[in-house]
Amino acid sequence: MRIDRPAARPDDIRRHNLAVILAQIHRDGPLTRAELTARLGLSRSTIGALVADLTALGFVEESVPNGGERAGRPSHVVGPHAGGPFVIAVDVDVSHLTAAAVGVGGTTLAKRVVPHEACPPTPAQVARQIFATVASLRAELGRSDDTIGPAAIGISVPGTVDRRNGAVGFAPNLGWRHAEFGGLLDDIAVPVVVGNDADLAVLAEHQRGSGRGCDDVVYLIGRVGVGAGIIANGSPLRGHDGQAGEIGHNVVDASGPPCHCGKRGCLETFIGDNALLELVGRGGLARDGAAQEVFADARSGQEQALSAVRVVAESLGQALGVIVNTLNPQRVILGGSLADVLDIARDVVEQSLDRHALDAPGRTVQLSLPSLGEDSALLGAAEVAFAAVLDDPLGDRVLLPR
Amino acid sequence: MRIDRPAARPDDIRRHNLAVILAQIHRDGPLTRAELTARLGLSRSTIGALVADLTALGFVEESVPNGGERAGRPSHVVGPHAGGPFVIAVDVDVSHLTAAAVGVGGTTLAKRVVPHEACPPTPAQVARQIFATVASLRAELGRSDDTIGPAAIGISVPGTVDRRNGAVGFAPNLGWRHAEFGGLLDDIAVPVVVGNDADLAVLAEHQRGSGRGCDDVVYLIGRVGVGAGIIANGSPLRGHDGQAGEIGHNVVDASGPPCHCGKRGCLETFIGDNALLELVGRGGLARDGAAQEVFADARSGQEQALSAVRVVAESLGQALGVIVNTLNPQRVILGGSLADVLDIARDVVEQSLDRHALDAPGRTVQLSLPSLGEDSALLGAAEVAFAAVLDDPLGDRVLLPR
Repeated sequence: MRIDRPAARPDDIRRHNLAVILAQIHRDGPLTRAELTARLGLSRSTIGALVADLTALGFVEESVPNGGERAGRPSHVVGPHAGGPFVIAVDVDVSHLTAAAVGVGGTTLAKRVVPHEACPPTPAQVARQIFATVASLRAELGRSDDTIGPAAIGISVPGTVDRRNGAVGFAPNLGWRHAEFGGLLDDIAVPVVVGNDADLAVLAEHQRGSGRGCDDVVYLIGRVGVGAGIIANGSPLRGHDGQAGEIGHNVVDASGPPCHCGKRGCLETFIGDNALLELVGRGGLARDGAAQEVFADARSGQEQALSAVRVVAESLGQALGVIVNTLNPQRVILGGSLADVLDIARDVVEQSLDRHALDAPGRTVQLSLPSLGEDSALLGAAEVAFAAVLDDPLGDRVLLPR
Repeated sequence: MRIDRPAARPDDIRRHNLAVILAQIHRDGPLTRAELTARLGLSRSTIGALVADLTALGFVEESVPNGGERAGRPSHVVGPHAGGPFVIAVDVDVSHLTAAAVGVGGTTLAKRVVPHEACPPTPAQVARQIFATVASLRAELGRSDDTIGPAAIGISVPGTVDRRNGAVGFAPNLGWRHAEFGGLLDDIAVPVVVGNDADLAVLAEHQRGSGRGCDDVVYLIGRVGVGAGIIANGSPLRGHDGQAGEIGHNVVDASGPPCHCGKRGCLETFIGDNALLELVGRGGLARDGAAQEVFADARSGQEQALSAVRVVAESLGQALGVIVNTLNPQRVILGGSLADVLDIARDVVEQSLDRHALDAPGRTVQLSLPSLGEDSALLGAAEVAFAAVLDDPLGDRVLLPR
C-alpha cells in the first residue's frame, strides 16, 4: 500500500468503482451485467447504477443480446460506446509516422501512415506533421468541433524521453539529441504524453497482446537501437528519470566495437541491426529494410545470412540472461528485428539464455513474439493517452479539452 | 490502478484509513493529532475516532505533551504502543544468527546474537536455533502466553528464496542448494516469511534508512556472493519467482574466471570477496573477516591492498552502469564489502560508473552507504513480518496467532 496518498472518502468509492468497470471493459471488451456483478462482487442494483453513470458519460452503451434458447431474461451486455471519447496515438518512425484515433476498448477508429518531409525528420517537422494529422483524423471522424476532440494525444518516439516535459534525450535512429520535442506540441489544447517506444509497446502487449495476464513482462525491441520496456508487479517500471530499460548501452565487452554513444562494446553493437549487417559484409549506415533483406536470405537458407543471425542470436541469449537475472520476468517479448532473430534461431537463443541465466528464473521465462505486430508502440501510445481518462471517468478531461 | 482487485465498499474506508494512520506512525514515529489531520485531509473528529480505534486495538498510545510556552490546548501525540503487537526478525548469517523482537515503529525491544552449532550450519540446525531463540525472546519480553506472542516472524537468508514456501534455491555462503528451509518452520504457530537478504535490506533502508523518500532505489550487497534488492515505483520488485536482483551471476566476461554457479566470468568473480582476496594473493576459501582485513590494510595506506580495492571499484562501476541503464534508480545503496569499496575508492567507482552508464540516469544517481549498517536485512525481516498486520489492523492476526 502506498501510504502517502490521501485518505479515502465516501465519494471515492463511486469514482473508484466507475474506474474499475470502465478499465475492465476497455481491456476485455463487452461484458454482461451479470459478469460485472460477479467480477466486482457488488449487488446487481449497484452495478446497474454504475453502468447508467458510464452510459450517461458517453463511455459505454448497453445492448440486449438475442435471447437464444435459454430461459429467463438475458443479461444486458455493456460494451464500449463507438461514438464515445477517443484519443489520438502517434508512432514516430524514421521515414514516416503512423497515427490513429482509438476509442474505448482499444478500437482503431481511423488510421493513416504519413511520410516525413525529410528522412530522418527534425523535431519541428514531426510536430508539424502531428498537428496536420490530428486535424485530418478529427475531420475524418466528423468531430472537428472543439468540444468533441480527442481526450488526449499519446506519442511514441524511438528514443529516451523525459516524461515530465516530453524532451527527447537521445533518439539515435532519428538523429535527435537533447531535443525539446514535447515543448513544440504545447499549442495542442489537450494533454499530450510523449513516451519511449519500448515503454509503450510493453504497455499495449501487457494490456491486450502477448503479455496479457503476466505481472512481470519485458518487451525487448531491437532495430538500429536496442531498448526494453518493463512491466514489474503489473505496473510500468520507468525509473527515476523515466529512462529505465536503456539496456542497449550496457557494456557487454569493454574491448568491443565502438558505439555511437561514445562507449565501446555496448549491447547494441552485438545485437543491433548494424551488427547483423556487418556480419554479412553489408556494414555502414543501416538503410531502411536492410536487416529485413538479411532475414529473408536466412529464411531462404542462405548460409552466410543464417550464420550471421545465429551469431546475433547467441549474443541475444546473453542479453536475455542479464534481463532474467535482474528482473526475473515471466515472459520476454522480442520486437523489431529481434522478433526475426527469435523466429529464425530460437534454438540458439534459448541455449545461450540457459547458459547465461540462473537456474530457476531461466527455466520459467517464456520468449514470445509480439502479438500486436508493428502496432505495439502505437497502441501503447493510445493507452497512456487514455490513462488519465480511465483513472477518473468523472474528471473534466473527457469530451472537454482544456 | 490494479483493475483486477475487488470493488471498494463503504466498510473498506475505515479499514483503509486505519491502515494509513498506522503505517505513517510505524514509519515516521509519534505524530500529533493535528499532523495526522493535515496529512490525511480528514476532519479532527474522524481522526479522533480512528486513533481511538487504534488505541483500543493496542497499536498506539496517546500522550499529552508539556504545554511549553504556546497558548491553547496542545495537540495529543499519537505514538507506537510499547506494549503492543510485535514481530520477531531473524537474520541468518554464516557463523551466527541475529534475532530481534521489534515493535510498532521499528523499535527493537530485545535482541540477541546466537552462534550456529556448525559453520556453515545446516537448514535443520538453523531451524532449531530459531525455535529456541523465539522462545527465549518471548520469555525475555515476559510474553510467553500464547495469546500475546509475536504477530509474525520474518527471516532473512543470504540466498535465493521461493517466497511461496520459503524454500532456499541457492545460498552459496551457507552451502545450501534446493533446501526446503521454510517447511522446517511449519510448526511455528504464526505466519513465517522467509526472504532474501538484499530484498529485505532494501525494504528497511527504503522505510527508515538511506533510501527514505526514494521511489526507485537499489540495495547492492556484496560479500562472498553479490545480489541486489530493488524498490521500483515505491514497491519491492521481486519478479515472477521472487528471484529478481540476482545480478551476481550476470556474465560480465564470458572468458573470465570460473564461478561456483558453473558459469564463467559472473559479476561475483569480479566484485565478490574472493575476487578481492585473489588480488592480494590471499585467494582460496574466503574466511569470515578476511575481506575486512584487506579493507583495514587499504585504509592504513598499504599499497597492494589499496590497488586491489581500486580494481574491484572499477568493476563495481561497470556493474552499477548496468543497474543504472536498466532500472534508472535515484539512489543505489552499497552494502556488505561493497560499502567498504565505495568508502575507500569512491572516485574510482564514480568515474567507472560515468563511463559505463548512459548520460542522464548516470548523472542523477546517488551512491550511498546503508544508514542501518549491519541491521538492514534484520529490520527488513521485521518489516515483512509486520506487513500483514499493518495492511489490515482489523485482521485477526494481531495478538491472536492462528
